[in-house]
Amino acid sequence: MKQFTFLLVAVATLIGVVAYVAPAFGNTDNDGAPLFVTTIPAGYRDWRWVSSAHEEGSLHSIGAVLGNDVAIKAYREGKLPFPDGAIIAALHYSHVPSAENNKVFGQAQSFVPGPPTNLQFMVKDTAKYAATGGWGFATFVDGKPAAAASMKSCFPCHNQAKATDLVFTRYAP
Amino acid sequence: MKQFTFLLVAVATLIGVVAYVAPAFGNTDNDGAPLFVTTIPAGYRDWRWVSSAHEEGSLHSIGAVLGNDVAIKAYREGKLPFPDGAIIAALHYSHVPSAENNKVFGQAQSFVPGPPTNLQFMVKDTAKYAATGGWGFATFVDGKPAAAASMKSCFPCHNQAKATDLVFTRYAP
Repeated sequence: MKQFTFLLVAVATLIGVVAYVAPAFGNTDNDGAPLFVTTIPAGYRDWRWVSSAHEEGSLHSIGAVLGNDVAIKAYREGKLPFPDGAIIAALHYSHVPSAENNKVFGQAQSFVPGPPTNLQFMVKDTAKYAATGGWGFATFVDGKPAAAASMKSCFPCHNQAKATDLVFTRYAP
Repeated sequence: MKQFTFLLVAVATLIGVVAYVAPAFGNTDNDGAPLFVTTIPAGYRDWRWVSSAHEEGSLHSIGAVLGNDVAIKAYREGKLPFPDGAIIAALHYSHVPSAENNKVFGQAQSFVPGPPTNLQFMVKDTAKYAATGGWGFATFVDGKPAAAASMKSCFPCHNQAKATDLVFTRYAP
Protein backbone atom coordinates (compact mmCIF):
# COMPACT_ATOMS: atom_id res chain seq x y z
CA MET A 1 0.00 0.00 0.00
CA LYS A 2 2.85 2.33 0.86
CA GLN A 3 4.49 1.58 -2.45
CA PHE A 4 1.24 2.10 -4.28
CA THR A 5 0.69 5.43 -2.55
CA PHE A 6 4.18 6.57 -3.46
CA LEU A 7 3.61 5.53 -7.05
CA LEU A 8 0.42 7.54 -7.18
CA VAL A 9 2.15 10.59 -5.78
CA ALA A 10 5.13 10.22 -8.09
CA VAL A 11 3.05 9.71 -11.18
CA ALA A 12 0.71 12.53 -10.33
CA THR A 13 3.50 14.91 -9.47
CA LEU A 14 5.51 14.88 -12.63
CA ILE A 15 3.07 13.29 -15.00
CA GLY A 16 0.00 15.04 -13.84
CA VAL A 17 -1.05 18.53 -13.13
CA VAL A 18 -4.23 20.44 -12.63
CA ALA A 19 -6.22 20.93 -15.79
CA TYR A 20 -8.40 18.42 -14.06
CA VAL A 21 -9.15 19.80 -10.64
CA ALA A 22 -11.00 17.57 -8.24
CA PRO A 23 -14.14 19.11 -6.73
CA ALA A 24 -12.44 18.66 -3.37
CA PHE A 25 -10.13 21.56 -4.27
CA GLY A 26 -13.15 23.72 -5.05
CA ASN A 27 -11.78 24.75 -8.42
CA THR A 28 -14.59 24.11 -10.86
CA ASP A 29 -16.16 26.01 -13.70
CA ASN A 30 -19.56 27.67 -13.52
CA ASP A 31 -21.34 24.39 -14.13
CA GLY A 32 -19.48 22.70 -11.32
CA ALA A 33 -17.56 20.47 -13.72
CA PRO A 34 -13.81 20.03 -13.20
CA LEU A 35 -11.54 22.47 -15.06
CA PHE A 36 -9.30 21.00 -17.71
CA VAL A 37 -6.52 22.55 -19.72
CA THR A 38 -7.08 20.74 -22.98
CA THR A 39 -5.06 22.79 -25.44
CA ILE A 40 -1.29 22.73 -25.79
CA PRO A 41 -0.02 26.34 -25.65
CA ALA A 42 1.01 27.47 -29.12
CA GLY A 43 4.68 27.82 -29.96
CA TYR A 44 6.02 26.28 -26.77
CA ARG A 45 8.85 24.49 -28.61
CA ASP A 46 10.28 27.93 -29.49
CA TRP A 47 10.37 29.14 -25.89
CA ARG A 48 13.63 29.80 -24.08
CA TRP A 49 15.37 27.18 -22.01
CA VAL A 50 15.02 27.42 -18.24
CA SER A 51 16.83 24.26 -17.16
CA SER A 52 17.25 20.53 -17.69
CA ALA A 53 16.15 17.75 -15.35
CA HIS A 54 16.86 14.09 -14.73
CA GLU A 55 14.45 11.94 -12.71
CA GLU A 56 15.06 8.38 -11.63
CA GLY A 57 12.58 6.21 -9.71
CA SER A 58 9.42 5.35 -11.59
CA LEU A 59 9.82 8.35 -13.89
CA HIS A 60 13.28 7.50 -15.29
CA SER A 61 13.24 10.59 -17.49
CA ILE A 62 15.41 13.34 -18.86
CA GLY A 63 13.99 16.58 -20.10
CA ALA A 64 13.93 20.32 -20.27
CA VAL A 65 11.88 23.13 -18.85
CA LEU A 66 11.10 26.03 -21.17
CA GLY A 67 9.37 29.32 -20.42
CA ASN A 68 7.34 31.78 -22.47
CA ASP A 69 8.49 35.43 -22.52
CA VAL A 70 6.54 36.34 -19.38
CA ALA A 71 7.94 33.39 -17.43
CA ILE A 72 11.55 33.94 -18.59
CA LYS A 73 11.41 37.62 -17.66
CA ALA A 74 10.18 36.76 -14.18
CA TYR A 75 12.82 34.04 -13.80
CA ARG A 76 15.64 36.37 -14.86
CA GLU A 77 14.47 39.18 -12.62
CA GLY A 78 13.95 36.79 -9.73
CA LYS A 79 10.40 38.11 -9.55
CA LEU A 80 7.97 36.08 -7.45
CA PRO A 81 5.16 35.30 -7.66
CA PHE A 82 5.13 34.74 -11.42
CA PRO A 83 2.74 37.23 -13.09
CA ASP A 84 -0.42 36.22 -14.91
CA GLY A 85 0.41 35.07 -18.41
CA ALA A 86 3.49 33.13 -17.38
CA ILE A 87 3.57 29.62 -18.81
CA ILE A 88 6.19 27.02 -17.97
CA ALA A 89 6.58 23.91 -20.12
CA ALA A 90 8.24 20.65 -19.10
CA LEU A 91 9.25 18.29 -21.90
CA HIS A 92 10.00 14.77 -20.67
CA TYR A 93 11.63 11.87 -22.48
CA SER A 94 12.86 8.43 -21.52
CA HIS A 95 16.38 8.53 -20.09
CA VAL A 96 18.29 6.27 -22.47
CA PRO A 97 21.96 5.53 -23.14
CA SER A 98 23.49 6.85 -26.35
CA ALA A 99 25.19 3.94 -28.08
CA GLU A 100 26.99 6.18 -30.54
CA ASN A 101 28.31 8.55 -27.89
CA ASN A 102 29.42 5.66 -25.71
CA LYS A 103 31.31 4.13 -28.62
CA VAL A 104 33.32 7.33 -28.99
CA PHE A 105 33.94 7.58 -25.24
CA GLY A 106 34.84 3.92 -24.99
CA GLN A 107 32.51 3.35 -22.04
CA ALA A 108 28.85 3.65 -21.07
CA GLN A 109 28.55 7.19 -19.76
CA SER A 110 26.29 9.15 -22.09
CA PHE A 111 22.52 9.47 -21.67
CA VAL A 112 20.15 11.31 -23.97
CA PRO A 113 16.41 11.84 -24.49
CA GLY A 114 14.65 8.77 -25.92
CA PRO A 115 10.96 8.66 -26.86
CA PRO A 116 8.81 11.42 -25.29
CA THR A 117 6.98 10.40 -22.12
CA ASN A 118 4.83 13.45 -21.54
CA LEU A 119 4.51 17.20 -22.00
CA GLN A 120 3.44 19.34 -19.06
CA PHE A 121 2.48 22.96 -18.50
CA MET A 122 1.87 25.31 -15.63
CA VAL A 123 -0.26 28.27 -16.69
CA LYS A 124 -0.45 31.29 -14.37
CA ASP A 125 -3.91 32.83 -14.16
CA THR A 126 -4.57 34.04 -10.65
CA ALA A 127 -8.32 34.42 -11.05
CA LYS A 128 -9.05 31.34 -13.11
CA TYR A 129 -6.94 28.99 -10.99
CA ALA A 130 -7.40 30.69 -7.62
CA ALA A 131 -8.16 27.39 -5.90
CA THR A 132 -4.85 25.86 -7.01
CA GLY A 133 -2.41 28.60 -6.14
CA GLY A 134 -3.06 30.61 -9.27
CA TRP A 135 -1.60 27.92 -11.51
CA GLY A 136 -3.40 25.75 -13.99
CA PHE A 137 -1.62 22.47 -14.53
CA ALA A 138 -1.74 20.28 -17.62
CA THR A 139 -0.25 17.04 -18.84
CA PHE A 140 -0.32 15.74 -22.38
CA VAL A 141 0.67 12.30 -23.53
CA ASP A 142 0.99 11.79 -27.28
CA GLY A 143 -0.60 15.19 -27.73
CA LYS A 144 -3.69 14.34 -25.69
CA PRO A 145 -4.63 15.42 -22.14
CA ALA A 146 -3.69 12.78 -19.59
CA ALA A 147 -6.37 10.92 -17.64
CA ALA A 148 -7.91 13.14 -14.98
CA ALA A 149 -7.28 10.58 -12.26
CA SER A 150 -3.52 10.86 -12.77
CA MET A 151 -3.58 14.60 -12.11
CA LYS A 152 -5.29 14.83 -8.73
CA SER A 153 -2.06 15.12 -6.78
CA CYS A 154 -0.39 17.74 -8.95
CA PHE A 155 -1.50 20.77 -7.01
CA PRO A 156 -0.94 19.43 -3.48
CA CYS A 157 2.54 18.28 -4.49
CA HIS A 158 3.53 21.55 -6.17
CA ASN A 159 1.97 23.39 -3.25
CA GLN A 160 4.91 22.18 -1.15
CA ALA A 161 7.12 24.57 -3.13
CA LYS A 162 5.38 27.67 -1.77
CA ALA A 163 8.66 29.59 -1.41
CA THR A 164 9.10 29.54 -5.18
CA ASP A 165 5.46 30.09 -6.14
CA LEU A 166 4.82 26.35 -6.56
CA VAL A 167 7.56 26.01 -9.19
CA PHE A 168 10.25 23.41 -8.59
CA THR A 169 12.57 24.26 -11.47
CA ARG A 170 15.21 26.96 -10.96
CA TYR A 171 16.71 29.00 -13.79
CA ALA A 172 20.09 27.62 -14.92
CA PRO A 173 22.64 30.43 -15.33
CA MET B 1 48.50 4.96 -19.61
CA LYS B 2 45.31 3.64 -21.10
CA GLN B 3 43.31 5.38 -18.41
CA PHE B 4 45.24 8.57 -18.94
CA THR B 5 44.63 8.42 -22.67
CA PHE B 6 40.91 7.90 -22.10
CA LEU B 7 40.83 10.82 -19.72
CA LEU B 8 42.48 13.03 -22.29
CA VAL B 9 39.99 12.01 -24.92
CA ALA B 10 37.02 12.39 -22.61
CA VAL B 11 38.06 15.77 -21.33
CA ALA B 12 38.91 17.04 -24.74
CA THR B 13 35.74 15.74 -26.28
CA LEU B 14 33.13 17.39 -24.13
CA ILE B 15 35.19 20.00 -22.40
CA GLY B 16 37.30 21.04 -25.27
CA VAL B 17 36.86 21.97 -28.83
CA VAL B 18 38.79 23.57 -31.57
CA ALA B 19 39.19 27.29 -31.18
CA TYR B 20 42.72 26.13 -30.60
CA VAL B 21 43.70 24.11 -33.62
CA ALA B 22 46.95 22.26 -33.46
CA PRO B 23 49.31 23.00 -36.36
CA ALA B 24 49.12 19.29 -37.11
CA PHE B 25 45.61 19.86 -38.45
CA GLY B 26 46.89 22.63 -40.68
CA ASN B 27 44.26 25.06 -39.47
CA THR B 28 46.21 28.16 -38.56
CA ASP B 29 45.85 31.83 -39.23
CA ASN B 30 48.00 33.75 -41.68
CA ASP B 31 50.81 34.03 -39.20
CA GLY B 32 50.85 30.31 -38.61
CA ALA B 33 49.60 30.71 -35.04
CA PRO B 34 46.83 28.41 -33.81
CA LEU B 35 43.26 29.64 -34.31
CA PHE B 36 41.28 30.37 -31.19
CA VAL B 37 37.64 31.25 -30.77
CA THR B 38 37.94 33.69 -27.93
CA THR B 39 34.57 35.40 -27.92
CA ILE B 40 31.34 33.91 -26.60
CA PRO B 41 28.65 34.27 -29.30
CA ALA B 42 26.22 37.02 -28.32
CA GLY B 43 22.75 36.12 -27.14
CA TYR B 44 23.32 32.36 -26.94
CA ARG B 45 21.22 32.07 -23.75
CA ASP B 46 18.17 33.15 -25.77
CA TRP B 47 18.61 30.45 -28.43
CA ARG B 48 16.13 27.63 -28.85
CA TRP B 49 16.50 24.32 -27.10
CA VAL B 50 17.83 21.40 -29.16
CA SER B 51 18.11 18.71 -26.48
CA SER B 52 19.34 17.86 -23.00
CA ALA B 53 22.26 15.60 -22.08
CA HIS B 54 23.56 13.67 -19.10
CA GLU B 55 27.16 12.47 -18.95
CA GLU B 56 28.64 10.23 -16.32
CA GLY B 57 32.28 9.14 -16.12
CA SER B 58 34.76 11.92 -15.50
CA LEU B 59 32.35 14.54 -16.81
CA HIS B 60 29.44 13.86 -14.42
CA SER B 61 27.37 16.62 -15.98
CA ILE B 62 23.87 17.56 -17.00
CA GLY B 63 23.18 20.22 -19.55
CA ALA B 64 21.44 21.49 -22.61
CA VAL B 65 22.26 22.09 -26.24
CA LEU B 66 20.85 25.27 -27.81
CA GLY B 67 20.99 26.42 -31.41
CA ASN B 68 20.93 29.80 -33.13
CA ASP B 69 18.26 30.39 -35.80
CA VAL B 70 20.39 28.95 -38.60
CA ALA B 71 21.18 25.81 -36.62
CA ILE B 72 17.59 25.26 -35.46
CA LYS B 73 16.25 25.65 -39.00
CA ALA B 74 18.72 23.05 -40.26
CA TYR B 75 17.90 20.69 -37.38
CA ARG B 76 14.16 20.96 -38.00
CA GLU B 77 14.49 20.48 -41.73
CA GLY B 78 16.90 17.60 -41.23
CA LYS B 79 19.30 19.47 -43.47
CA LEU B 80 22.90 18.26 -43.48
CA PRO B 81 25.54 19.52 -43.57
CA PHE B 82 24.71 22.50 -41.37
CA PRO B 83 25.04 25.74 -43.38
CA ASP B 84 27.58 28.43 -42.64
CA GLY B 85 26.39 30.63 -39.82
CA ALA B 86 25.03 27.76 -37.76
CA ILE B 87 26.17 27.86 -34.14
CA ILE B 88 25.45 25.18 -31.58
CA ALA B 89 25.92 25.87 -27.87
CA ALA B 90 26.38 23.26 -25.13
CA LEU B 91 25.79 24.43 -21.57
CA HIS B 92 27.17 22.01 -18.98
CA TYR B 93 26.63 21.90 -15.24
CA SER B 94 27.48 19.54 -12.44
CA HIS B 95 24.93 16.73 -12.14
CA VAL B 96 23.67 17.16 -8.57
CA PRO B 97 20.77 15.78 -6.55
CA SER B 98 17.91 18.14 -5.71
CA ALA B 99 17.34 17.93 -1.97
CA GLU B 100 14.07 19.82 -2.15
CA ASN B 101 12.65 17.70 -4.96
CA ASN B 102 13.72 14.49 -3.22
CA LYS B 103 12.00 15.61 -0.05
CA VAL B 104 8.72 15.92 -1.93
CA PHE B 105 9.20 12.59 -3.70
CA GLY B 106 10.23 10.88 -0.50
CA GLN B 107 13.31 9.33 -2.08
CA ALA B 108 16.51 10.31 -3.89
CA GLN B 109 15.52 10.41 -7.53
CA SER B 110 15.79 13.99 -8.76
CA PHE B 111 18.90 15.47 -10.36
CA VAL B 112 19.34 19.03 -11.54
CA PRO B 113 22.06 21.36 -12.85
CA GLY B 114 24.52 22.46 -10.16
CA PRO B 115 27.37 24.92 -10.73
CA PRO B 116 28.34 25.43 -14.39
CA THR B 117 31.30 23.33 -15.56
CA ASN B 118 31.83 24.75 -19.02
CA LEU B 119 30.21 26.41 -22.02
CA GLN B 120 30.98 25.09 -25.49
CA PHE B 121 30.27 26.14 -29.06
CA MET B 122 30.54 24.72 -32.54
CA VAL B 123 30.62 27.49 -35.15
CA LYS B 124 30.08 26.54 -38.79
CA ASP B 125 32.31 28.43 -41.20
CA THR B 126 33.35 26.18 -44.03
CA ALA B 127 36.17 28.36 -45.28
CA LYS B 128 37.60 29.51 -41.98
CA TYR B 129 37.57 26.08 -40.37
CA ALA B 130 38.19 23.98 -43.47
CA ALA B 131 40.85 21.92 -41.73
CA THR B 132 38.47 20.86 -38.97
CA GLY B 133 35.43 19.79 -40.93
CA GLY B 134 34.09 23.31 -41.37
CA TRP B 135 33.45 23.69 -37.65
CA GLY B 136 35.24 25.95 -35.22
CA PHE B 137 35.10 24.60 -31.70
CA ALA B 138 35.29 26.59 -28.48
CA THR B 139 35.21 25.94 -24.77
CA PHE B 140 34.80 28.54 -22.07
CA VAL B 141 35.24 28.03 -18.36
CA ASP B 142 34.09 30.85 -16.10
CA GLY B 143 33.68 32.97 -19.22
CA LYS B 144 37.27 32.47 -20.37
CA PRO B 145 38.61 30.28 -23.20
CA ALA B 146 39.82 26.93 -21.89
CA ALA B 147 43.49 25.99 -22.04
CA ALA B 148 44.52 25.13 -25.59
CA ALA B 149 45.98 21.80 -24.51
CA SER B 150 42.57 20.60 -23.38
CA MET B 151 41.08 21.18 -26.82
CA LYS B 152 43.43 19.23 -29.07
CA SER B 153 41.19 16.17 -29.28
CA CYS B 154 37.92 17.97 -29.96
CA PHE B 155 38.03 17.77 -33.70
CA PRO B 156 39.24 14.16 -34.07
CA CYS B 157 36.58 13.06 -31.60
CA HIS B 158 33.74 14.96 -33.26
CA ASN B 159 35.06 13.80 -36.61
CA GLN B 160 33.81 10.32 -35.70
CA ALA B 161 30.25 11.65 -36.12
CA LYS B 162 30.67 12.24 -39.86
CA ALA B 163 27.15 10.98 -40.65
CA THR B 164 25.68 13.91 -38.73
CA ASP B 165 28.17 16.56 -39.84
CA LEU B 166 30.32 16.11 -36.72
CA VAL B 167 27.40 16.92 -34.40
CA PHE B 168 26.55 14.38 -31.69
CA THR B 169 23.36 15.96 -30.38
CA ARG B 170 20.06 15.12 -32.07
CA TYR B 171 17.01 17.38 -32.03
CA ALA B 172 14.49 16.35 -29.35
CA PRO B 173 10.93 16.33 -30.75
